[in-house]
Amino acid sequence: MATEESKKRDSMRRMLNPASIAVVGATERPQYGGRFVRSVLQSQGKVRVYPVNPRYKELLGVRCYSKLSDLPESPDLVGIIVPYHQVLPVIQESAEVGAGSAIIVSAGFSERGDAERSELQEQIKRLAEASGVRTCGPNCLGAALVQQGVWPSSTPPDPRLKPGPVALVSQSGASAFGPLMTRAIDMGVGYSHIISTGNEADLESSDFIRYLLDEPDVRVVACFIEGLKDGRKFLDAARIALERGKSIVLIKVGRSGVGAKAARSHTAALTGSDAVHNAVFKQFGVIRSDDYDDLIQTAHLMAYAPPPAGDGVTIVSHSGGISSLIADHLGHAGLPIPPLTDRTAHGLSRILGGFGWASNPADITGLANREEFGDVLDLLEGEPNTGALVIATAGNTAQAQTVLNLKKQSRKPLFFLSTGGDGTTQGLAKLRAGNVPLFTSPSRLAKGLRGFFDYHQRRKETIESADAATARLRPAFRPLPLLPEGNATLTEHDAKALLSNWGIPSTREVRAYSLAEAIEASATIGFPLALKLESPHIPHKTDAGVVRLDIRNVEQLSAAYGKIAANSLQNSPQSQGSPVLVQEMVTSGVEVIVGLSQDPQFGPIILFGLGGTLVEVYQDVTMRACPISEKDAREMVRDVRGAKLLNGFRGAPEGDVDAL
Amino acid sequence: MATEESKKRDSMRRMLNPASIAVVGATERPQYGGRFVRSVLQSQGKVRVYPVNPRYKELLGVRCYSKLSDLPESPDLVGIIVPYHQVLPVIQESAEVGAGSAIIVSAGFSERGDAERSELQEQIKRLAEASGVRTCGPNCLGAALVQQGVWPSSTPPDPRLKPGPVALVSQSGASAFGPLMTRAIDMGVGYSHIISTGNEADLESSDFIRYLLDEPDVRVVACFIEGLKDGRKFLDAARIALERGKSIVLIKVGRSGVGAKAARSHTAALTGSDAVHNAVFKQFGVIRSDDYDDLIQTAHLMAYAPPPAGDGVTIVSHSGGISSLIADHLGHAGLPIPPLTDRTAHGLSRILGGFGWASNPADITGLANREEFGDVLDLLEGEPNTGALVIATAGNTAQAQTVLNLKKQSRKPLFFLSTGGDGTTQGLAKLRAGNVPLFTSPSRLAKGLRGFFDYHQRRKETIESADAATARLRPAFRPLPLLPEGNATLTEHDAKALLSNWGIPSTREVRAYSLAEAIEASATIGFPLALKLESPHIPHKTDAGVVRLDIRNVEQLSAAYGKIAANSLQNSPQSQGSPVLVQEMVTSGVEVIVGLSQDPQFGPIILFGLGGTLVEVYQDVTMRACPISEKDAREMVRDVRGAKLLNGFRGAPEGDVDAL
Repeated sequence: MATEESKKRDSMRRMLNPASIAVVGATERPQYGGRFVRSVLQSQGKVRVYPVNPRYKELLGVRCYSKLSDLPESPDLVGIIVPYHQVLPVIQESAEVGAGSAIIVSAGFSERGDAERSELQEQIKRLAEASGVRTCGPNCLGAALVQQGVWPSSTPPDPRLKPGPVALVSQSGASAFGPLMTRAIDMGVGYSHIISTGNEADLESSDFIRYLLDEPDVRVVACFIEGLKDGRKFLDAARIALERGKSIVLIKVGRSGVGAKAARSHTAALTGSDAVHNAVFKQFGVIRSDDYDDLIQTAHLMAYAPPPAGDGVTIVSHSGGISSLIADHLGHAGLPIPPLTDRTAHGLSRILGGFGWASNPADITGLANREEFGDVLDLLEGEPNTGALVIATAGNTAQAQTVLNLKKQSRKPLFFLSTGGDGTTQGLAKLRAGNVPLFTSPSRLAKGLRGFFDYHQRRKETIESADAATARLRPAFRPLPLLPEGNATLTEHDAKALLSNWGIPSTREVRAYSLAEAIEASATIGFPLALKLESPHIPHKTDAGVVRLDIRNVEQLSAAYGKIAANSLQNSPQSQGSPVLVQEMVTSGVEVIVGLSQDPQFGPIILFGLGGTLVEVYQDVTMRACPISEKDAREMVRDVRGAKLLNGFRGAPEGDVDAL
Repeated sequence: MATEESKKRDSMRRMLNPASIAVVGATERPQYGGRFVRSVLQSQGKVRVYPVNPRYKELLGVRCYSKLSDLPESPDLVGIIVPYHQVLPVIQESAEVGAGSAIIVSAGFSERGDAERSELQEQIKRLAEASGVRTCGPNCLGAALVQQGVWPSSTPPDPRLKPGPVALVSQSGASAFGPLMTRAIDMGVGYSHIISTGNEADLESSDFIRYLLDEPDVRVVACFIEGLKDGRKFLDAARIALERGKSIVLIKVGRSGVGAKAARSHTAALTGSDAVHNAVFKQFGVIRSDDYDDLIQTAHLMAYAPPPAGDGVTIVSHSGGISSLIADHLGHAGLPIPPLTDRTAHGLSRILGGFGWASNPADITGLANREEFGDVLDLLEGEPNTGALVIATAGNTAQAQTVLNLKKQSRKPLFFLSTGGDGTTQGLAKLRAGNVPLFTSPSRLAKGLRGFFDYHQRRKETIESADAATARLRPAFRPLPLLPEGNATLTEHDAKALLSNWGIPSTREVRAYSLAEAIEASATIGFPLALKLESPHIPHKTDAGVVRLDIRNVEQLSAAYGKIAANSLQNSPQSQGSPVLVQEMVTSGVEVIVGLSQDPQFGPIILFGLGGTLVEVYQDVTMRACPISEKDAREMVRDVRGAKLLNGFRGAPEGDVDAL
């Protein structure tokens, strides 16, 4: 419903661009409520502020109101910092006075892990949706609207944080206003917004991401996610980001079970299967970071680097050891480091005069501190194989100026790796001010560049893809009713019959209820044969001894039939009267698995991998959110390590990938 | 030869504890020679300094000598900074005047990649060994003898670098005196030595590591290695480090082909197979780092953290989001995060009063800034499941003091993760001064802790191991003469005969030169059978159609024999007259591979993995340097992912691991 959506946007617009803010639970004491009202009061002049608390007439020098209905206007945003049991009534009041939105700092809801409090949180959700007063939180730290200079937050405004094209959305308030803010300040990276979403009773991270993608000044949304509430909603935002050339960079907790468990206790969000997350992130061009610094540096890179001018990375440094370590990390991340063309190599060689390496990576020794540094950079920037240029030196002031000069003339992405320490602070500050993506560690640089190239590759594919099936998710995709309701498992025979309706061939086979029928079937199908008892009571047939393979003649068929009957009687008396499947024996070829599952967060997920017992050992599988295009399907086949088995590995015949 | 070794040590002792230093190629100009003599002159009073250059009578205020033979004494160390073609004569002169050792800064040797210069470098090696004037370099930046306050180096002494228990050995001079020095200064980490080894014509990194392990003040050797010259020498040093409870932490270039290639051009050292390096590093308790900061932080950790008090890590932070991210990284690195015992959980719960999480990881919310922080830390330190404690907060001054108080009383290892930025510099400086291992990134913390636990695990095993076969390498291990000289490949039949000498059973089989002989063999061996042409001219038998499997009777045998003969004739006429192997057919069981190879750097390496075609797809293998103990062998079997196939996977019979 478009109107529902547009009402939500209106509410969020009032939350994130408020002209007036009421603070319910304002106090002079240094608690969350006191800190929140102090923060908001610092932006007086930009917003009208209304402290609400029946115990004060005046608070911190401004008039304080008893209740929301006393206010002279309907506030765009209500900050709620009251004991948990008062939250619902305050939202109700907010709705009654026509407030636009609410940020609930109060804690004591689902994070407690008790049913009553979780139900209370559900009531917040329902009331917010019904009343149209959409809410952020509870159990959050509020937001910093950095561009506007307004901080409806329990964290005081930090004047050192500059506005920038990166919006930060974080389920963890302490991470957002802790390391993710302070280190961005230290690195000179600016944020447009910091939004701490807490338990996400109503508005989710994905709602904020989606909203922020419409803001012209936001180029990147950086996120700290413990668990997505609605994965499809997230993917929808990711698709839109990709289409618009904006990007999403995130930390997602849940790579290990223990982190997932901890996150679950924290925001009560399902962390979900990590493998599925990685698969859909890749599919939708979402860049996953490990760590605070990683996230900030990669977000900054994505905000400022133009698209690559080609696949290859050219590396230049003042040291062979540093060059080779960078090349090693980039190579390990799968990034090509092509050789220089002869013309560039000769030009560089002339400048180097016999020292260093006139190659990629280049080692220009002490020249990094001389006038020739600019000539070297010009030459390497002009190299046709340079899709992106990595410059690694200490980063003193002169070097920084040379790099900035290059950046002014160049349309290729430049990345700077500082090998210096605190002594090069000034030069690095210059580079940051000039929006040159800056790293201090080769491994982080390699991760950042990998994400950068993957994003642009994915974006190119999405744009080029004539059938945009991958990118377009049906809004309410439901699995087709393949299975009769209530019947949890299909027998092998029924499953094959179903597949044949879709044109998917399988083994020729006949159900036999007696040895005579089996022998009759063998005449039609031909030897060799496989025999399997078909019983819903025996899930692991091989273990139960009711599978016989490679039957060559009637004599063997008769013996095998007898064995299956005996083992069935012994292992599964309920299976008496079950038929035996008489199947053509298939031995050659490569076993593959194609599976579909209904992921609790991302809906239908398709899986492809090398099959047989080994799929359980090596888990050599790849996944995508459905629907997928034929192009995606072919990419999935190439994705798995065992793909080479389909390409005629070691003299075996090639697999029929088209049919697959 | 012990005397040779002790002469080498004497020479190295004079290099690394010099009382007198001559500088050949001293100059007033700001080149390598000028910088070197200036650096050394700064330590006058600690060493006697003799500039040598026939063009000066006096240089920078001290007497300058025309030649080494004019000096009033035999210098312990000669710094050589002359054009490449003069290096050899200077070493010769050094030997003649009884000098102890030399550091060759001059470049222009094997790094040039031309044969003549490489030969010149070989001559340096031979002369150094023959004369006993052992050399460091060429193409290096010299050394910083930090504890002694003497810098025979082309880098000026940096008074901010404090002495400490970490010795740094680096093939890359620009890395050693660049990021690895400046960032150690920034982090407050001290070095005992910085040794830049350059091309390693004579003394290798491993020689310096071995020497440094004897220095009582050195607890950790941190290395930047592009390629090891003699891998066995390195492993010998690693074994000694493990025995003494000292550790080796290193960056090794060569994780990707391109980095390896770049490194090769740099120091002309073979980078070697990365998989073999990882295997032997693990086997000998060597910790591999990715990156500059990683290396410094992990080295510092290893220098100061006492051994773990158990396997489990307990985590405490002021934030649920931060706690769960740390737990996630540690869990991903395979570190156990055990639950708190009831007593601790109740105690913590009482302190928290209903907020946060009284669990592991613990979230103590705002208490991190209150007096109770100390009580919380005491409680968690006393928790029996705490083998190591990770404390993550911003790290302001009060928090730092609380942590330092705990450290004074505790014998358990404590690690601090700072979630703050530059604003917490003072507290972090306090923690550094108190030698608390300090991290700023959860992913680096996880890597450091993984290395720490692995090292101590490996050390425990080495000490406990009654048969110390793993730890003790025979000094000059040579492969047994299994293969007749000049015969590169054994036939399958000969190989099996050889293995049977060692008590390793294989399939029963007979060589047949005719169909009649094959039929005769079938009577002895019994059906089913496998038939294979045995010809040295056909390396890929299956591809050539000369293997037939699962032959059930004489009729099939006859047909198969005919097919092999025909295919042999067609594909490999030279194979005429070759015998056919008639083998018992083996179908059940798990295919494994056990291989031995002669690694150019580490000598004999044993490999174990799951076998068959799949070993080439999944490379699910593990390796060790030989010899290995039975314990190692069992560990290898457990190491591979496919190990579960040997444990009776999905109802299959268990593999005979004892026999394996």
